[in-house]
Amino acid sequence: MRATDENGIDVVRQLLGAKPRPVGWAERRARIVEVGGAWPVAADIAFETVDAGGVPAEWSRAPGADTSRVLLFLHGGGYCSGSLASHRTMATEAGRAAGISTLSLEYRLAPEHPYPAALDDARAAWTWLERQGFAADRIVVGGDSAGGNLGLALWRDLRDAGRPAPAALWLVSPWTDLTVSGASIDDNDAIDPLLHRAYLEELATAFVPEGIPHDDPRVSPLFADLTGLPPTLVQVGADETLLDDSVRLVRAAALAEADVRLHVFPHMIHAFPLWNAVLPAARAALGEFGMFARTYLA
Amino acid sequence: MRATDENGIDVVRQLLGAKPRPVGWAERRARIVEVGGAWPVAADIAFETVDAGGVPAEWSRAPGADTSRVLLFLHGGGYCSGSLASHRTMATEAGRAAGISTLSLEYRLAPEHPYPAALDDARAAWTWLERQGFAADRIVVGGDSAGGNLGLALWRDLRDAGRPAPAALWLVSPWTDLTVSGASIDDNDAIDPLLHRAYLEELATAFVPEGIPHDDPRVSPLFADLTGLPPTLVQVGADETLLDDSVRLVRAAALAEADVRLHVFPHMIHAFPLWNAVLPAARAALGEFGMFARTYLA
Repeated sequence: MRATDENGIDVVRQLLGAKPRPVGWAERRARIVEVGGAWPVAADIAFETVDAGGVPAEWSRAPGADTSRVLLFLHGGGYCSGSLASHRTMATEAGRAAGISTLSLEYRLAPEHPYPAALDDARAAWTWLERQGFAADRIVVGGDSAGGNLGLALWRDLRDAGRPAPAALWLVSPWTDLTVSGASIDDNDAIDPLLHRAYLEELATAFVPEGIPHDDPRVSPLFADLTGLPPTLVQVGADETLLDDSVRLVRAAALAEADVRLHVFPHMIHAFPLWNAVLPAARAALGEFGMFARTYLA
Repeated sequence: MRATDENGIDVVRQLLGAKPRPVGWAERRARIVEVGGAWPVAADIAFETVDAGGVPAEWSRAPGADTSRVLLFLHGGGYCSGSLASHRTMATEAGRAAGISTLSLEYRLAPEHPYPAALDDARAAWTWLERQGFAADRIVVGGDSAGGNLGLALWRDLRDAGRPAPAALWLVSPWTDLTVSGASIDDNDAIDPLLHRAYLEELATAFVPEGIPHDDPRVSPLFADLTGLPPTLVQVGADETLLDDSVRLVRAAALAEADVRLHVFPHMIHAFPLWNAVLPAARAALGEFGMFARTYLA
């Protein structure tokens, strides 16, 4: 059931429908920039390109940002596409909502660079941030879709190395189960304009090296030991095939005694905060993230 | 896994352990008043006893409360126990957090008064509130445990009668599945100090008349059509057997295109906001409810 009213999603659905996903990684990477960058970044955002421990990255700050605290932003795109350009409106407005700087990463993509290349890049950037003087409790890690997967992988990597955890995690439409086993894969197949089983399986196969099963907790954090998870906010659209990747993650986090929140936004689609220029619910989601980040950042 | 640290829950667990649940409804009703009323109500709350359409009820207001908006509070106790007295600290502090009046209901209890007596009472009080001049969008309906079940039943009753819905629903540890089928019934059996399968089944049998199956949506809203559900905040403890009553309700509400949030509080137990005098997480939960209510009340 979809609304055709004031929630604005039809504009985004029309955009996506007008630019169907092509075949070929290069073409897909161009398309995600087109659809993610369909509306311009706000004119008052200041940018700074930076090498974050060997990883191309970009600082962004809205006026008045507290530069002693950081959102480390990890874009989505199934680990095979997505970039600074595709996610700039989401990353910059998230930073504005939290009143802090954003560091967005251009981590390496599959299939050229399968697991663990993206995790290696995220860890390198994290270590670089620490060396820049940002204590872990001054950093919130956030991302959408595969970026949520990567945020969980980064947190686990830090935990297992005995390193301090980020202050909080922000996961938007996270892809947590690379076996593509959630019931919502089918339940929401007809209403999700972006992600369907065959494509998700293609992405998983491109990202996960042979020899690692797709239910390995290194690539599917849904099946990981989540002990010690920092406070986590999960936001997801009701019209997503990945709805159950969020619902099940939250349940698993609860059983691991995490402070975890799930907010389901009606009529919204995968990674909807990308389109905050036209979606009131996206702006509400970013505002909620901002309050959440302020609550948990030291 | 439990913390034994600063979260305060051990004090509540000791209270509950020192007053184990007796046999017999009268004895159980006395016990829930003892454990729910173990800490006094704040001295600055003003009370007013009232007949709310034939239902014994109690207004409460903290200083400065906006008396044009109401929390209609429905206590828990498995539909067989609970009262104004047992839930006074939760109901009054929830009203304070939202900055509004609270109307708490003393609805009729099973087994003397099985379904639909409690719903009839809640509807009568709702109608009385409307006749007092409170529009539906000035009322938020909240409750814990069976009170969450009753809140959902009241909302469905209004919807099915074509009447306006409350502005929002607040469900704390709601009991949504009277078939007692959630996996957390077993997963959390060892750490939940209050609710276990045999007791839940005893309550369900006392409440549901013969001839109504326990999965009937009238008594188990988890299995109901949730179309039109108003914005809903669900709060639950991680250490509850009823965790999955919340998780599954939120999933069902998402598929019905509701604006729904779930917050799981680590180390907390069933209906933990009752003990806000000693639990920081309970005060945080009430504060979150207050922000939520302010967002959605007209």
